[in-house]
Amino acid sequence: MDSKQTQPKCITLRSQIAQLKEPIIIGVAGDSGSGKSTYSNGIRRLLGTDLVSTIEMDGYHKEDREQRRISGRLPLDPEANHLDLLRSHLALLKQAKSIEVPIYNHGTGKFDSPVHLAPSPIVVVEGLHALYPEILPLLDFSIYVDPDHDVKWQWKYERDVKKRGHLAEALTEEMLKREAAYKRWIDFQKTNANVVIKIFPSHLKEFSRHEFTGNLPANCYKVELIVEPGQVSLPSLPLPFDFAAMLEANQPPFMLAAVPCTYWGRKVMIIHIDGVLSQDTIATLEKQIVAYTGIPLEEGLSTQNIPDLQAHEQVSATQFAQLLITWRFLELVNHRLSELMAR
Amino acid sequence: MDSKQTQPKCITLRSQIAQLKEPIIIGVAGDSGSGKSTYSNGIRRLLGTDLVSTIEMDGYHKEDREQRRISGRLPLDPEANHLDLLRSHLALLKQAKSIEVPIYNHGTGKFDSPVHLAPSPIVVVEGLHALYPEILPLLDFSIYVDPDHDVKWQWKYERDVKKRGHLAEALTEEMLKREAAYKRWIDFQKTNANVVIKIFPSHLKEFSRHEFTGNLPANCYKVELIVEPGQVSLPSLPLPFDFAAMLEANQPPFMLAAVPCTYWGRKVMIIHIDGVLSQDTIATLEKQIVAYTGIPLEEGLSTQNIPDLQAHEQVSATQFAQLLITWRFLELVNHRLSELMAR
Repeated sequence: MDSKQTQPKCITLRSQIAQLKEPIIIGVAGDSGSGKSTYSNGIRRLLGTDLVSTIEMDGYHKEDREQRRISGRLPLDPEANHLDLLRSHLALLKQAKSIEVPIYNHGTGKFDSPVHLAPSPIVVVEGLHALYPEILPLLDFSIYVDPDHDVKWQWKYERDVKKRGHLAEALTEEMLKREAAYKRWIDFQKTNANVVIKIFPSHLKEFSRHEFTGNLPANCYKVELIVEPGQVSLPSLPLPFDFAAMLEANQPPFMLAAVPCTYWGRKVMIIHIDGVLSQDTIATLEKQIVAYTGIPLEEGLSTQNIPDLQAHEQVSATQFAQLLITWRFLELVNHRLSELMAR
Repeated sequence: MDSKQTQPKCITLRSQIAQLKEPIIIGVAGDSGSGKSTYSNGIRRLLGTDLVSTIEMDGYHKEDREQRRISGRLPLDPEANHLDLLRSHLALLKQAKSIEVPIYNHGTGKFDSPVHLAPSPIVVVEGLHALYPEILPLLDFSIYVDPDHDVKWQWKYERDVKKRGHLAEALTEEMLKREAAYKRWIDFQKTNANVVIKIFPSHLKEFSRHEFTGNLPANCYKVELIVEPGQVSLPSLPLPFDFAAMLEANQPPFMLAAVPCTYWGRKVMIIHIDGVLSQDTIATLEKQIVAYTGIPLEEGLSTQNIPDLQAHEQVSATQFAQLLITWRFLELVNHRLSELMAR
């Protein structure tokens, strides 16, 4: 299934995507605060934000904050969301029709006026239930973001207790209630995803003997990408990695592994990424992708300057994962374009 | 301490080494059957066998097999070896004088006639006690080969029980006796080595979820290189690694990690290598090293055809480790040559 001969040329990829009649829809599911947009941002940046529109599923909650306070229902409950409405909206977009997207305002806790959305070549749907059975058949590509329990707890604690001054006890009680609901209603969606992103605290210390002396960023994570292999081969993407530099003093620690296995009955590759690689490496990989897509990176949107890359995300494992997910998505786009050309 | 400006040019490295008056002596210690020569073979192959001579320390045993049977002494006991003779031999080589190397014949269990050895630019000393305090001050570079207990047991079992038909019970008894002696007399030498090579069964299955589906060679090992960083920077050695290929189906599993830490009080890098990388990758790295040294690989000595690479060693982790050790050794050679030029 090597389609290297039939691959569209670099210069045409952007124009071909721009002319797509039927949008490619990407679903990104995961808990709130799990960094869903971080992982779809690679696709936005590298394909160009004008080609990609985003639907936040929070707008499809049935109740606002005050109503939830009275009913005691959690937004994690699929019954507390208008999933059928979202499904019909996605179906309309697939028919190249515009929709009115409901908007939930996290500041006020109320719904704002709906926003008009014209179909764009690529649509990203982000939310708690983005891979639910109602939605899944309309998705072309699906991502599940799955931070480890400890990591989630740390992020939540840093945000709510340290920054917002909430009480730690109240947070613990809320988290425990949420976790059970999460396990019941959200977690299973990972069994359906094309890509699952697991996030753990860095494991690199366990790779040392005696005392670990590596310089890790304040919040360094290990990312495990569980990826369904693509059907179309893209050109090779040489990793600009200096083998000899590993032997020099004061090198930043890192780990990279690729392991084929099964995951919920499907054949997958698991890519493990931990630690730090130079910004040069990331930049060179991005340049190669840009050369392939023919889409210039937007000004001010280089890896270093992504506005929503918060402190806990400014590590190379995350950036690396972004690039791999984007590359895997480009395989799908390429496959789709080949199919269209074959018609 | 970047000496990139003063680095000798490619074409001169071989001729410069060939003209060394005082040989560079490499010690390789480790248990018998632990694969010592495998790891120094990279240096032999990549520097050219005519520049490298080898001293097997077994020739310096005080007793032959029959004498040991009567005395009950193990060759692991340093007192059962003429370490002082070896030391004076190495001192003679350092003065550019020839020596008569005693030879132990593993077939007959007796000593053969000594062999005349003229000094060569590089001398490799391999044996149980190669990094002993008597020898260490004469070494320029030291390697300790340290297979995990389970791995050693497996190699021994395959050789003695499966191939030679020894009784498993007798082997167990012998191994237990040997292991205690090994721990007492041999193991500590690793605290002095510039490079320690730890060998474990592959860990890659632990990197999978659900069922591991990777294709590993029959005997796949994880190699951990514990390396004292070099003092001189060599040119970068780009790893020809296809980042995108990781996302394709049926890719061979691998893991690579670099972790700075301390080891017996010294700052080291630990390089973890597990699994399989393509022969192309190895070949490309070798070509880069050859381009740097200016020494062509000898005919029939390509990675695939090393005579003493037995079945259990035909894995990329081992070949990778060979290249890294050779590169680290070239740093030392380069440093030495720079010093000589500065005189």
